[in-house]
Amino acid sequence: MEEDVTGAQLIAAALKAQVAMAAQAVGIKYVGMRNEQAACYAASAIGYLTARPAVCLVVEACRLYSKFSARPSSLQMIPVVVEKAVRSSIYGRPGACYIDIAGDMVNAKIPQSSVRLVSCCPAPPVSQADSREIKKAAGLLGSAQRPLIIIGKAYARAEREIRELVDVTGVPFLPTPMGKGVLPDDHPNCVAAARSRALLQADVIVLLGARLNWILHFGLAPRFSPHVKIIQVDLCAEEFSNNVRAASALLGDLRAVVGQLTETLRSDSWSFPLDSQWWDTLRDKMTANAQISKTLALRSSLPMNYYTVFHHISELLPRDCIIVSEGANTMDIGRTMLLNSLPRHRLDAGTFGTMGVGPGFAIAAAILEQTQRTGQRVVCVEGDSAFGFSGMEVETMCRYKLPIIIIVVNNNGIYSGVDPETWKEMEKMGDMTTIAPPVTLLPEARYEQLVRAFGGTGFLVRTVEELRSALEESLKNTEMPSLLNVLIDPASDRKQQEFPWLTRSNL
Amino acid sequence: MEEDVTGAQLIAAALKAQVAMAAQAVGIKYVGMRNEQAACYAASAIGYLTARPAVCLVVEACRLYSKFSARPSSLQMIPVVVEKAVRSSIYGRPGACYIDIAGDMVNAKIPQSSVRLVSCCPAPPVSQADSREIKKAAGLLGSAQRPLIIIGKAYARAEREIRELVDVTGVPFLPTPMGKGVLPDDHPNCVAAARSRALLQADVIVLLGARLNWILHFGLAPRFSPHVKIIQVDLCAEEFSNNVRAASALLGDLRAVVGQLTETLRSDSWSFPLDSQWWDTLRDKMTANAQISKTLALRSSLPMNYYTVFHHISELLPRDCIIVSEGANTMDIGRTMLLNSLPRHRLDAGTFGTMGVGPGFAIAAAILEQTQRTGQRVVCVEGDSAFGFSGMEVETMCRYKLPIIIIVVNNNGIYSGVDPETWKEMEKMGDMTTIAPPVTLLPEARYEQLVRAFGGTGFLVRTVEELRSALEESLKNTEMPSLLNVLIDPASDRKQQEFPWLTRSNL
Amino acid sequence: MEEDVTGAQLIAAALKAQVAMAAQAVGIKYVGMRNEQAACYAASAIGYLTARPAVCLVVEACRLYSKFSARPSSLQMIPVVVEKAVRSSIYGRPGACYIDIAGDMVNAKIPQSSVRLVSCCPAPPVSQADSREIKKAAGLLGSAQRPLIIIGKAYARAEREIRELVDVTGVPFLPTPMGKGVLPDDHPNCVAAARSRALLQADVIVLLGARLNWILHFGLAPRFSPHVKIIQVDLCAEEFSNNVRAASALLGDLRAVVGQLTETLRSDSWSFPLDSQWWDTLRDKMTANAQISKTLALRSSLPMNYYTVFHHISELLPRDCIIVSEGANTMDIGRTMLLNSLPRHRLDAGTFGTMGVGPGFAIAAAILEQTQRTGQRVVCVEGDSAFGFSGMEVETMCRYKLPIIIIVVNNNGIYSGVDPETWKEMEKMGDMTTIAPPVTLLPEARYEQLVRAFGGTGFLVRTVEELRSALEESLKNTEMPSLLNVLIDPASDRKQQEFPWLTRSNL
Amino acid sequence: MEEDVTGAQLIAAALKAQVAMAAQAVGIKYVGMRNEQAACYAASAIGYLTARPAVCLVVEACRLYSKFSARPSSLQMIPVVVEKAVRSSIYGRPGACYIDIAGDMVNAKIPQSSVRLVSCCPAPPVSQADSREIKKAAGLLGSAQRPLIIIGKAYARAEREIRELVDVTGVPFLPTPMGKGVLPDDHPNCVAAARSRALLQADVIVLLGARLNWILHFGLAPRFSPHVKIIQVDLCAEEFSNNVRAASALLGDLRAVVGQLTETLRSDSWSFPLDSQWWDTLRDKMTANAQISKTLALRSSLPMNYYTVFHHISELLPRDCIIVSEGANTMDIGRTMLLNSLPRHRLDAGTFGTMGVGPGFAIAAAILEQTQRTGQRVVCVEGDSAFGFSGMEVETMCRYKLPIIIIVVNNNGIYSGVDPETWKEMEKMGDMTTIAPPVTLLPEARYEQLVRAFGGTGFLVRTVEELRSALEESLKNTEMPSLLNVLIDPASDRKQQEFPWLTRSNL
Repeated sequence: MEEDVTGAQLIAAALKAQVAMAAQAVGIKYVGMRNEQAACYAASAIGYLTARPAVCLVVEACRLYSKFSARPSSLQMIPVVVEKAVRSSIYGRPGACYIDIAGDMVNAKIPQSSVRLVSCCPAPPVSQADSREIKKAAGLLGSAQRPLIIIGKAYARAEREIRELVDVTGVPFLPTPMGKGVLPDDHPNCVAAARSRALLQADVIVLLGARLNWILHFGLAPRFSPHVKIIQVDLCAEEFSNNVRAASALLGDLRAVVGQLTETLRSDSWSFPLDSQWWDTLRDKMTANAQISKTLALRSSLPMNYYTVFHHISELLPRDCIIVSEGANTMDIGRTMLLNSLPRHRLDAGTFGTMGVGPGFAIAAAILEQTQRTGQRVVCVEGDSAFGFSGMEVETMCRYKLPIIIIVVNNNGIYSGVDPETWKEMEKMGDMTTIAPPVTLLPEARYEQLVRAFGGTGFLVRTVEELRSALEESLKNTEMPSLLNVLIDPASDRKQQEFPWLTRSNL
Repeated sequence: MEEDVTGAQLIAAALKAQVAMAAQAVGIKYVGMRNEQAACYAASAIGYLTARPAVCLVVEACRLYSKFSARPSSLQMIPVVVEKAVRSSIYGRPGACYIDIAGDMVNAKIPQSSVRLVSCCPAPPVSQADSREIKKAAGLLGSAQRPLIIIGKAYARAEREIRELVDVTGVPFLPTPMGKGVLPDDHPNCVAAARSRALLQADVIVLLGARLNWILHFGLAPRFSPHVKIIQVDLCAEEFSNNVRAASALLGDLRAVVGQLTETLRSDSWSFPLDSQWWDTLRDKMTANAQISKTLALRSSLPMNYYTVFHHISELLPRDCIIVSEGANTMDIGRTMLLNSLPRHRLDAGTFGTMGVGPGFAIAAAILEQTQRTGQRVVCVEGDSAFGFSGMEVETMCRYKLPIIIIVVNNNGIYSGVDPETWKEMEKMGDMTTIAPPVTLLPEARYEQLVRAFGGTGFLVRTVEELRSALEESLKNTEMPSLLNVLIDPASDRKQQEFPWLTRSNL
Repeated sequence: MEEDVTGAQLIAAALKAQVAMAAQAVGIKYVGMRNEQAACYAASAIGYLTARPAVCLVVEACRLYSKFSARPSSLQMIPVVVEKAVRSSIYGRPGACYIDIAGDMVNAKIPQSSVRLVSCCPAPPVSQADSREIKKAAGLLGSAQRPLIIIGKAYARAEREIRELVDVTGVPFLPTPMGKGVLPDDHPNCVAAARSRALLQADVIVLLGARLNWILHFGLAPRFSPHVKIIQVDLCAEEFSNNVRAASALLGDLRAVVGQLTETLRSDSWSFPLDSQWWDTLRDKMTANAQISKTLALRSSLPMNYYTVFHHISELLPRDCIIVSEGANTMDIGRTMLLNSLPRHRLDAGTFGTMGVGPGFAIAAAILEQTQRTGQRVVCVEGDSAFGFSGMEVETMCRYKLPIIIIVVNNNGIYSGVDPETWKEMEKMGDMTTIAPPVTLLPEARYEQLVRAFGGTGFLVRTVEELRSALEESLKNTEMPSLLNVLIDPASDRKQQEFPWLTRSNL
Repeated sequence: MEEDVTGAQLIAAALKAQVAMAAQAVGIKYVGMRNEQAACYAASAIGYLTARPAVCLVVEACRLYSKFSARPSSLQMIPVVVEKAVRSSIYGRPGACYIDIAGDMVNAKIPQSSVRLVSCCPAPPVSQADSREIKKAAGLLGSAQRPLIIIGKAYARAEREIRELVDVTGVPFLPTPMGKGVLPDDHPNCVAAARSRALLQADVIVLLGARLNWILHFGLAPRFSPHVKIIQVDLCAEEFSNNVRAASALLGDLRAVVGQLTETLRSDSWSFPLDSQWWDTLRDKMTANAQISKTLALRSSLPMNYYTVFHHISELLPRDCIIVSEGANTMDIGRTMLLNSLPRHRLDAGTFGTMGVGPGFAIAAAILEQTQRTGQRVVCVEGDSAFGFSGMEVETMCRYKLPIIIIVVNNNGIYSGVDPETWKEMEKMGDMTTIAPPVTLLPEARYEQLVRAFGGTGFLVRTVEELRSALEESLKNTEMPSLLNVLIDPASDRKQQEFPWLTRSNL
């Protein structure tokens, strides 16, 4: 026959398959994803959930975005390079590392005796904060009128120590998106429902590994008091005093440092009084907000709105489920409405808002659950636009029989779409490439059929009843993925956001 | 309410929507794709099909892979930078250019009077080959015993000139994948069906813009004669003598240079005799190969094999349709079996074999067809693994009512998959992450349901009859996309390829 | 003994010495420079002067600034990579290429039989302009009232063709700095002495390989007529229409294209009349400028000024000498006052004004002269600040007995310095790090002693007589370098330049 | 007049001068160096000596090699960016940061009121080691038979704590090159004179901020015991277990951690006995090596050898002088022979062996001394090849009247040169570019004349008497630089080094 030969990347794909088979032969799990983007997201989630890196086999270079990168100069060097890459990925600030293996190495051979074995690297070294800074921090907290703890990402596994700090001191706390669940969202000291007021009025803030970036409005006025004092706890020296000067700089491992701080406060017998004016003002706001939220959630008009949808999902989800989320409004409102009770049980698009991460994150979490047999469920809450980035990975979920529940909150677009009638009117007006708003997608797209194509169960959901019934059924199904395509009001939106903080006020 | 604010990338998405709306307001077509990867592929196809660049709005940086990149330092500079980027993309060797617009520019304002308008750049400058080199080339060709013309990508729009060269000289020709259709594949001088023999035995080769890379086995033994003389025609000086020294180096615009060469040969009254031994040996091989191909194509056993599938598709496709293709075997065998009659009517994964390009390419072609109302159909022939990279773009096709016909040639994997029974046996054996071959996908995945989810028509195809009927029906449907999910024998494969050419024998 | 071992770079230096010795063993000349910066400059000058690359052995990476870069993956690949690098450096737009050889390759061995020899690449392919564009250009020129030819860098070896164009057409011409000498500066059609007027009033400009960049004020008003028509001749398509739209775009090899243009104009019997108003206005300006220049040059006050110095140097230099130059005023005024009669006999800091290039350029030119025994002298005219960058290379000149004449035009600083008395007054005022103007250097530094330290002849020059006598003596010395330290008025400066063109008006 | 205008880089130089003048106007010291390379080296030395960054004004980009880089998007952002760059340069692992200021910003203006002032960043945050790891380290040390402390670079200012550790425990120590002087080289516990034996036989090593890189033979056999246990103290988590697994990982600020360790050992009342076998074996080796060194140093034959030269220099240098050094043998042997008594009083080419750093380092040290008026002298010991890289900076030294003493140890080449007679014989043999060994320089080059050219004092030194007399005279001269050109035997070399460690045994 006379076919042209395939190109560089296809050969690379063949080599990749060989590497994967060799890995399986020594007992390493291999998950074949549909798109390398999703595979990278899955690998990053494994790193976050286990504190050890996963390996992502790719056929393209990604050296530039890596913390460490190397190309082994010989087969003998491979164990050394791998150990260095694994170690670099988890020591210090964790990050992706890249090993570039030339194609001709895959099939090359060397004598076993020439291989220098390298043992696996131990757990990362741990440091504590300077004792004088701890005293300074305790002093600041002791004199605070309106103290607040902000909890960052749960990577540091400091949940026990943070819980003790909160219990010992009685200070109110706020979780960042990936910090939700370090302490339960329904913990009495959680003031997430008064987030804006807490941030604005706090006079001393203990920042536990969180960064004063976009998500926290850079720590600046008008969202923060210009006089706020920051007690910053971080692993990474370079993070200190970004945007706001740290009043106390506690450099070290989060678990160790929080332990030091609690110990000192405990020996000072200091705690923040529950009957303070600060608690009163926060509780007032929380009550008011809960009322607004409840009103929205209980609206019975159709199509449903975000709050109604999340309210009912929230009621049905088990406390220990892992919530993955991405999208715009879907992710933002979902952060408020869907509660977490356990650390590292929320994975979302995070600081950079990268779209397409959801399915990869969910697959990673589900593979881990499958291994550890904890019986915890993975629920992936996706905006419809976000789902479009990596939606094909439902085939991967079905192939490995991962009982992920995908909930597509479908408003026919990004931020907001149009309803089917309006869409048809537009189509009559002429060329849709010049008419359709760039944020719109096909109205009432039937995403639930995607999962059916691969043997999963799909639900089209328009009402509260359908929502509850579909979710209950999905929770019973532990064999295969389910997908709920929840059609909501395309005009449903939070009150229009202004973006005064759009111009970066700092680096 | 108390939602956290959205992140950097979501804001960028909002800005992107604003830019898109502003573009629509001045009559520019905007196609909202699901994933930026696919958008980039679509833009590159527009460039190839029209020789003018399309604009791709992205929220990530891609400076490194661009021919030209710039960040305007002020609003006033934007027209200048845009003109420079457009010009750079089409002058010399065409390539992607990158303009980085800071977010705060999108909403900034300047007085109209301060804007220096820049008129659109004219067509690229054109050069001709040196007349002495033309004479040298004519001399080489005149003394050739076994001459061959290889036709590269159709970007240069030299089809009229190349046809004249072939007609005047009677020399046999071979198209490269993207060169198919510059002359019709069924032109009497096309020797694609004797490709290997033609390459191996040719003593003088006229290389028309093609490169001696992987696809052409680097021009080296054992696939080429070590004594072959290359008459190289190229726009780009740096491409000359890569891997094989050019015996004649014709630097210049392909149209101009082929014209010069034809003119000289015509005035020499030279042509290559049809009754030569070279033609005999090529015709023998073509006849033999056609026989093998036909035998395979007419096998009636089920599941179908590649040749059967492509044979019947080929019979039904209109001569003027645009064929997009990606995959491994699907793309390679399809190149042989699916004929092109017109230039720039084949778009495939090309030199780099990048997977995921198909839907983006198809959308680009269909949008052009919609604009120019030529009535030509776009057919997208996808391997099932390849389809997984950008399959979500079927929603985009449906949203814009692009009547693309997607044919997924489904062998349950990459290169080869397993059948449903074997798969079930594997599942019983334990953890599929350690058992399933990395090249396998879910057996008999129902990709046709994807297009149905968005209002298109999906067909599940197992037999020749179903294939013909589904394709005929799809060709009648000019309103919406169709998708044929063609289940073939998962063990169907070409004879096992060895890859002796894997180690790069040159740069 | 117990010394610590030396570091990475020293080992690299040792490896470099081994490579150098191996090169010498096969007859390659090796020039050991003091600093790798200077070695790179020398290599680039060899490339310009011979149109074939020189090799520069360096121990640091410079991949990013190279046209082509590669790291051979095995010893066998080295000949292939070297051929590709050499070829890439001279094909198309010439440029530096980079080969990264891993340290452990230097001492590695392979059997001779496994080495695939690669023959040296032939001369670059040549292209011609499109004949219709040639006609268009001839038409534009034919209707010009105030035509002008601008001659770019002499790399293209088109001097014979350009001379014929000027002689056949009688059009006035201006050389760019590195284009001086393509035609003699005292050619009757050279209007360099009326440069500003010529640029401003020309209505049709033939741009021969020159670029409309900083040096040519971007081709824009107020230094050019906004209605000027540009006939652009260039090798590189991407250069066309930068800043000003080309009225005729002649893409191709400069020699070929100028030949085509001359041929067409000759067959049209067109020439530009000497008795035209254009010639009158240019000649008036040239006469006036010559008068001013002469007045400045003949001033007898001490210290000398730039014009006096260059006037006398100019009188004594042989017509065929190679002039190397760098500095600010020294280079700018020297361009006007020091005439060139032969192509590629001027090397200066060029477009980027990179300081420190002079000694490396001069060494390269002198090594070539030593090889070709043409008897031509190399004169290196340096500003005192510029000389500080690579001044240590006088040892290299002395080591290889290269009879380079270095003339340091010493005004005690950058742009302008202070005299010794003022300097002493400043020193009394306190800490010189806060007092001394950043542009000043040590007054009356005795640079001539540097060359004496290595066996060359140094002259301290304060008067016209000393200048002439020292230069005459230096010209007689063909055995060793000479250095003239010419003390001029530190306040000597051209009229203050304004930089309205500082803000890049285009890319 | 009709000069061409100067290029981009010259304009940049003019802008740089403006920035420098503005800096001087607010009292910032500005040192105008001759070459930007040397300016960068000087800035890095200021950082090392003061723990606060210096600013280096350059006209080229160096973004890639910087820890942090930014381009302010507006004038208002400049204070913010500067604070971030300063902070990043000293927080965590110190490193260079880069701010890219567009040319048109230099002359732009904004209202004072729009500038947000940013206060200077505080001292870096400090962390301590985990207390359990401290206990583990103390246990390892307590059971050591042959303990050793290795002292890294003196950046951390931990001299008081390290002295206490050594005094309390009595453990022998070895300084790395830049760690010399943290404790005096003549401290009784310093075993530098038995370096190889100490490294080879130690069973427990406390690594104080040093890295197991080339300079320490990667910590591997055959230079280290394969069973050695490393107690690693470092600021940077990623440095742990590179090449050798850390038996105890003490992550934190060096001062804090050494303090913790000493405290624990003191409370354990542990110290290492002076009458141990380990001390005996080290003392035997030290005595033997001292004898060899003394024999070499006292050889009276001429030309002198390295050991004689350094012996006499060492006798005359004041204890508190700052020694700068670079070169190959000069730097290596000088490290052994020239003693340091104070921390941060040695600056040398360090880990990377970068050549050309000496003059810049010396200028930085001398400027600091001039400011602080400590009366300490700066002595710059240069190999003759190394001196060639930045030798022109002697003009800078003279211009600012910095009384630096430069000692060029001149063996006519790199590693080794040839004598004048051999050189002349070579010259008779033909073209020196193919004959002269690449490592040779001009024999007996008179580098002392360079300093004379700028008003400093130069000495040509061939004998011990001349050496002592010249150095004594130079030490008396506190007004201007001195340069001693010390001619030594060009064949003088250490015993030929083999480089078995050349192949990187690890990353």
